[in-house]
Amino acid sequence: MARYKLTLEYDGAPFVGWQRQDNGLSVQQAVEDAVLRFCGERAHVQAAGRTDAGVHAWGQVAHVDIAKPTRPDVVRDALNFHLKPHPVAVVSAEAAPDGFHARFSATGRRYLYRIVNRRAKLALDAGRAWLVSVPLDDAAMTQGARRLVGRHDFTSFRSTACQAASPVKTLDRLDVSRAGDEIRIDVAARSFLHNQVRIMVGTLKLVGEGKWTPDDVAAALAACNRERGGPTAPPDGLYLAAVRYEAPSGSLEGEADEAVDDQA
Amino acid sequence: MARYKLTLEYDGAPFVGWQRQDNGLSVQQAVEDAVLRFCGERAHVQAAGRTDAGVHAWGQVAHVDIAKPTRPDVVRDALNFHLKPHPVAVVSAEAAPDGFHARFSATGRRYLYRIVNRRAKLALDAGRAWLVSVPLDDAAMTQGARRLVGRHDFTSFRSTACQAASPVKTLDRLDVSRAGDEIRIDVAARSFLHNQVRIMVGTLKLVGEGKWTPDDVAAALAACNRERGGPTAPPDGLYLAAVRYEAPSGSLEGEADEAVDDQA
Repeated sequence: MARYKLTLEYDGAPFVGWQRQDNGLSVQQAVEDAVLRFCGERAHVQAAGRTDAGVHAWGQVAHVDIAKPTRPDVVRDALNFHLKPHPVAVVSAEAAPDGFHARFSATGRRYLYRIVNRRAKLALDAGRAWLVSVPLDDAAMTQGARRLVGRHDFTSFRSTACQAASPVKTLDRLDVSRAGDEIRIDVAARSFLHNQVRIMVGTLKLVGEGKWTPDDVAAALAACNRERGGPTAPPDGLYLAAVRYEAPSGSLEGEADEAVDDQA
Repeated sequence: MARYKLTLEYDGAPFVGWQRQDNGLSVQQAVEDAVLRFCGERAHVQAAGRTDAGVHAWGQVAHVDIAKPTRPDVVRDALNFHLKPHPVAVVSAEAAPDGFHARFSATGRRYLYRIVNRRAKLALDAGRAWLVSVPLDDAAMTQGARRLVGRHDFTSFRSTACQAASPVKTLDRLDVSRAGDEIRIDVAARSFLHNQVRIMVGTLKLVGEGKWTPDDVAAALAACNRERGGPTAPPDGLYLAAVRYEAPSGSLEGEADEAVDDQA
């Protein structure tokens, strides 16, 4: 039995999310079905981030154990062949290091959230970004974002359904930048609470349109109450960009967070 | 009767191309139908570039004459409303300057061609880029591209169906750059011959995989024979990025080219 580390890209739109569910096709099931068709094995594919329905990935990482001895590049090509009907690609497959676990070994996760800030509907980016028609002040959003960086109790920014043991997380990065009518929000942490990125983005949108001040963000954080956080931004704009496995070079605080991620 | 300058974004995949045809829905027809539904007028919408089936646009420019007096932002919003079922957006609408013609007034066109250079199939970029699985040497492609910049007879790089009066064009820019597994080719000229960009890209791909040398590109250009040029790259990777209307600040040569574009 050999363990393979897979890097996956997918369009989240047609899926019920990463995780297997009864109500539709998940990315996990699509990959597990491809493994079955490739080598006849019913494998369990585990991912670093359990992305929600509609959330995309460039750099999701998963692992799978396969008994049939196979070169990693053959695993990649065979899975891609069997994934053909679905918008899921195995960008790379490698022999996993000893003890590697896609979810529990992860030391950092990066997400990107894309907002298109204009009146016109989305054409090329339909389903791939959040269309916000009211003008957003990205400088104010940057000020609001600064209030969230660091180690905090993020209860106001997690889904009430979140099952993480602790609401305390260390947010390493929450950068807002604008290029033309696109606003990009780059987010990095060891791990995230359920819906954390989307609630932070929904909150920063309130700051961008002037309904909230940056200090309101700090007050919402301090309240430790989901009802005080902003709304959850739609999944369309969210991309799991990368997962890191080396030891974090940063704070000891970061290392104290749970390695598991209840996805953004 | 007022003339409006429209900037359009579209996903080319579901269309037979810009121009009205009997065999399916064109972008032109989608926009003209939206005008009809908005104000009851059967207008003729003219574009700067007659993009082929499957070719996308961020910055196509078109004009339309509407009798009903309407503010430009209302034209934009109304057309977007009536374009809802189609992946076409009117990014902006402005009152056109006197004598403005989207096609004949254009003084520059910019296209982007996206290649994804990897083994894995496309997931997020399916239909939005050309997947090339053999490794491409982008430095060699840059050398090949340099042989094409300037004023030349591009007969070897135009479709045999091209109806342009002259095969002589001035290519202002043909830049190849790589970021990770994506190769981007930025192209600019006053106007292009039919399939010119896609044939240049198909030729540079031969250089990238080592089948042609950069000097072979120069020889193909000198031959003035379509059979000596490379194959036509697929439309998926091609985007009409922008159209310019101010006078070109560059060479007099460029001004000598036809303003009309038989699209790339």
